[in-house]
Amino acid sequence: MKIQPVKGTRDFYPEVLAPIRQIFDAWRKTSLLHGFSEWEGPTLEYLDLYREKSGDELVGQLYRLTDSGGRELALRPEMTPTLARMVAAKINAIPKPIKWFCISNLFRGENVQRGRLREFYQWNVDVIGSPSMVADGEVILCGVESLRSLGLAAADFSVHISNRNLVRSILLAAGINEEGHGGAYALMDKAAKLPREELARRWGEAYGKQLAFDTLDSLMDAGSLTDLRAAVARVGPATSELDKAIADTQELFSILQNFGISEFCQLDLHVVRGLAYYTGPVFEFYDRSEKERAICGGGRYDDLLGKLGKSGEPAVGFGMGDVVLSLIMEEKRLLGGAARTVDVFVADAAGGQERIVQQVVAALRRGGYAAEFEYRPGALGKQLKSADKLGAKQVVIVGSETDRAKIKDMAGGLERDIALAALITNPREHLTGRS
Amino acid sequence: MKIQPVKGTRDFYPEVLAPIRQIFDAWRKTSLLHGFSEWEGPTLEYLDLYREKSGDELVGQLYRLTDSGGRELALRPEMTPTLARMVAAKINAIPKPIKWFCISNLFRGENVQRGRLREFYQWNVDVIGSPSMVADGEVILCGVESLRSLGLAAADFSVHISNRNLVRSILLAAGINEEGHGGAYALMDKAAKLPREELARRWGEAYGKQLAFDTLDSLMDAGSLTDLRAAVARVGPATSELDKAIADTQELFSILQNFGISEFCQLDLHVVRGLAYYTGPVFEFYDRSEKERAICGGGRYDDLLGKLGKSGEPAVGFGMGDVVLSLIMEEKRLLGGAARTVDVFVADAAGGQERIVQQVVAALRRGGYAAEFEYRPGALGKQLKSADKLGAKQVVIVGSETDRAKIKDMAGGLERDIALAALITNPREHLTGRS
Repeated sequence: MKIQPVKGTRDFYPEVLAPIRQIFDAWRKTSLLHGFSEWEGPTLEYLDLYREKSGDELVGQLYRLTDSGGRELALRPEMTPTLARMVAAKINAIPKPIKWFCISNLFRGENVQRGRLREFYQWNVDVIGSPSMVADGEVILCGVESLRSLGLAAADFSVHISNRNLVRSILLAAGINEEGHGGAYALMDKAAKLPREELARRWGEAYGKQLAFDTLDSLMDAGSLTDLRAAVARVGPATSELDKAIADTQELFSILQNFGISEFCQLDLHVVRGLAYYTGPVFEFYDRSEKERAICGGGRYDDLLGKLGKSGEPAVGFGMGDVVLSLIMEEKRLLGGAARTVDVFVADAAGGQERIVQQVVAALRRGGYAAEFEYRPGALGKQLKSADKLGAKQVVIVGSETDRAKIKDMAGGLERDIALAALITNPREHLTGRS
Repeated sequence: MKIQPVKGTRDFYPEVLAPIRQIFDAWRKTSLLHGFSEWEGPTLEYLDLYREKSGDELVGQLYRLTDSGGRELALRPEMTPTLARMVAAKINAIPKPIKWFCISNLFRGENVQRGRLREFYQWNVDVIGSPSMVADGEVILCGVESLRSLGLAAADFSVHISNRNLVRSILLAAGINEEGHGGAYALMDKAAKLPREELARRWGEAYGKQLAFDTLDSLMDAGSLTDLRAAVARVGPATSELDKAIADTQELFSILQNFGISEFCQLDLHVVRGLAYYTGPVFEFYDRSEKERAICGGGRYDDLLGKLGKSGEPAVGFGMGDVVLSLIMEEKRLLGGAARTVDVFVADAAGGQERIVQQVVAALRRGGYAAEFEYRPGALGKQLKSADKLGAKQVVIVGSETDRAKIKDMAGGLERDIALAALITNPREHLTGRS
């Protein structure tokens, strides 16, 4: 009887996992360099945690289960609710700003789109407790630098930045009241996918009286703050909220410039981010290929912690998944990472020297060398072939003598004679670098 | 509204996660040094995968859920069924012996004992495709060396080793047929917990005619192969299976001696390991304190892959959890690991130099230094206090000049003047070591 893996999950054989670990390692290293501390949460949460934040719609897409006490649980579909719960529980004990990251597996139960997995990994980077635009800039910096450290450049991806407060105050300034904003966001989000005429028709019907489609279009197409200001001037009289949102956006772009990542970043009011809880800057990282896949998305969510906990805290963060990023890196031949490396192979030249081979292998490993050997060694030639296949740089050849061996340099082919006791006691003196 | 974490799960705040990552890192590093490659599987599997291997009893303890298509799924309670499934799917494509490890989270749904968590992490180390006792020795070596690298010594833990084939052939030699073995194993497993008289009474009633309790007792108490041989001689005439099992056990102990870990290892026929699928050596790592907690358990399971896949392969492996190990290390004050380290703090001495501070911070991070700064810097004295609290070894002090700064050595208090352009271009020339 052959049991299959669950559809939408992955079997990570070592050669599949190694390149993903390369990504995880870059995420972790970049996070630590940028002053973020790693956290992790439970895979299971009470269903109510997601109901509270996301409403019943998203709850329908969860993997749900019931525990022995009849309580409804869910497999985490995202980390932010857990983050909010944990921060809320210790809000007064943790110094602000809280700079945390995690690399966690997430789940989508139902109604998943084609090509999206049911279990995937996501890197989350968040700053909690600071309303400063420096925080927004710093999470974007961290995301950009992680991709840069993986070999991606400004020619490969870009960061599209909008601001929900900005769009909100534009809509308000145009006379579209809050009830209409959801529909307006939805149309803006669809802008790239809908034919222009269709978009114009739909916008015109719903909001045309307050905000002409041409004006919306010039807002959405504004690629710089100068363009944006010109477009905003056509909307209507400025409000203090609108002025503040423009000033915030300008400040954020200055910070991104200071951080040296201007070439990656562009204003783009098309970026809406579906989730209802964003309150300030929102951003998405796209690959610049014709596929324009989203690598990463995030933004400011100042109201969420107050909704889930006792007291609110301003917050900003992003999530970056492993699936799209792996795909892009694979296309660009940037994915690497060996499942393992072997520093030294220990061969039994004549057979029957298992005792010495095992002693040497254990001593080398204890000395920090990845040492390999064969459980049932064949002829020396075969063992040397194995050593070569494993990428071993050196081979210790144990012959018929019980106190001496040879060290063969696999690249040069040179052999040296050595006392086994010396090799066992101090491998570093006799072998070249460890991996 | 305050939502609690699910009972039996853990919230890993950074200061909680850091010491556990220290353990994960040691597990991973030791695995790689010993020639194991990392793999990972899905968190969710079809329920049948566990039913096939473990029978309906264990299935009752699973977190179960039903997907949108009505199929029964479970959260993985152990990795071995997934390992068997994955290996079976590519059995002919993977060179043998297969040496794999994983560090994975596992779940227990119901009927959990007090103090056992519902979600925990486990390190699995397995060798598949070799019947050689060297494989058994190598997984034990890997387990011992991981604990050694974490600071535990022979005074802290020991490896108790039995052999299911050995016990099986002793029981058969005594005339106890296979139907009785389950009950006999159960009693041996309970031996340490039951009063001696009670154990003797129960054993006598069930198996006394075939194997006297005194003989069983001398078998169980045999701490060396010599003792064991003497005890076995009292059971009855030797069988070829019994001879083979004794020879295997002797070979395993020789290998453990060659590997230099004899001082950790002892024969102990009390070790049964509950799971039905073990076929050869079985072992448990115990801490030597009066609490005698099991740190790790494993053994040889030559029949399992054949049961789950098309063709069988001999296999041996172990699982080591994070919970008991963390506890023991904490008691011995061996747990450490900082949530993050800061190499350099960049201070804004006079205020208003955000632009320069942000430029320097980003440049240092790009150069591999964990650099930190304050979003809203206060007075210099306060910033230096923050730097000290964060453990920064050096502080770059940006003053009113826009092209120069000072580098303050936090330990010595010395200050040097430096051109900002030089620091940004080549931080390594001007700063001490990175973390």
